[in-house]
Amino acid sequence: MQQLKDRILAEARILPGNIVKIDGFLNHRVDMALMQAMAKEFTGLFDISGITAVLTVEASGIALGASCAAEWGVPLLFAKKAKSDNIEGGLYTSDIFSFTYKKNVTLLVSMQWLCADDKVLIVDDFLANGEALRGLVDIVNQARAELLGIGIAVEKGFQPGGRLMREAGHNLKSLAIIDKIDENGITFRDQ
Amino acid sequence: MQQLKDRILAEARILPGNIVKIDGFLNHRVDMALMQAMAKEFTGLFDISGITAVLTVEASGIALGASCAAEWGVPLLFAKKAKSDNIEGGLYTSDIFSFTYKKNVTLLVSMQWLCADDKVLIVDDFLANGEALRGLVDIVNQARAELLGIGIAVEKGFQPGGRLMREAGHNLKSLAIIDKIDENGITFRDQ
Repeated sequence: MQQLKDRILAEARILPGNIVKIDGFLNHRVDMALMQAMAKEFTGLFDISGITAVLTVEASGIALGASCAAEWGVPLLFAKKAKSDNIEGGLYTSDIFSFTYKKNVTLLVSMQWLCADDKVLIVDDFLANGEALRGLVDIVNQARAELLGIGIAVEKGFQPGGRLMREAGHNLKSLAIIDKIDENGITFRDQ
Repeated sequence: MQQLKDRILAEARILPGNIVKIDGFLNHRVDMALMQAMAKEFTGLFDISGITAVLTVEASGIALGASCAAEWGVPLLFAKKAKSDNIEGGLYTSDIFSFTYKKNVTLLVSMQWLCADDKVLIVDDFLANGEALRGLVDIVNQARAELLGIGIAVEKGFQPGGRLMREAGHNLKSLAIIDKIDENGITFRDQ
């Protein structure tokens, strides 16, 4: 999606460890017009007929997920993050490793809001190692819901998450895939 | 706002400690049509001319904040929550006590995205003790930005947050104020 790539090139700051900081429009200050444009872009990339919910994970997936859910007229469901010792009953849980926080976290979704009748699209702002996504897919599987696909804003193609998801057969679409960051700047994958 | 009160009466579950659980449409599974209706309601309650940003706090304020920001054509800025020992430079910080997690957390907003030229409306899903709100107002003051008002979806009127904010002179509007929860159910404040 050219509009997203242009914003990344114009505004991204590269921090040590190949961290791509685009918190001016994606995950701290959020440009809602861009979120809405991304939601429309996903509409053309997935077959969302019969979709019943958009699934994401707190916190930075929520703004994009909200725009998608509003666009498609379905609820937004966001997984909560809890420490592993804070499990209640009536929840789907999936343990993931958070590279941001360098610790295990547990994703939680209430069984009340996701079941075998659901057809969901997973949406998130960033895909790097794919741990959050692995947890969300696990929860969709536990619920025996149908996974229509996975829509990502920015994928870091030099980290394994996207490859692992595609090898597992998931219909993953990323609106911008960064394949390389070096002294020449950011190189996107041709799509 | 009658539509919101009707949803609360129809779907809220009351948990021990007067916790009002409305996670089926507000803060776990989110009804985006209702969020959009609440954004329009806020439009009539505040003078948002010249507004430059909507400010909220992760995670459950983001969906409502996103709808408001989209409605008014301005960015959504959400404060992040960090542990007190995780402070970086270039950030406004405010320490609050989280009653949910029973510990201190620090709200963080990048100085890059909030400054004295900004006119912001604070939005959040719930107001009880008002700690999160106190932190957000503190950050707006640190930035010397103008606070246009505070829009809340559900206020628990029997907890002190709303009273404290109004006594401090803030233009606080809550779309539903729960004044009492007892054996007769939920009683809303007449507004």
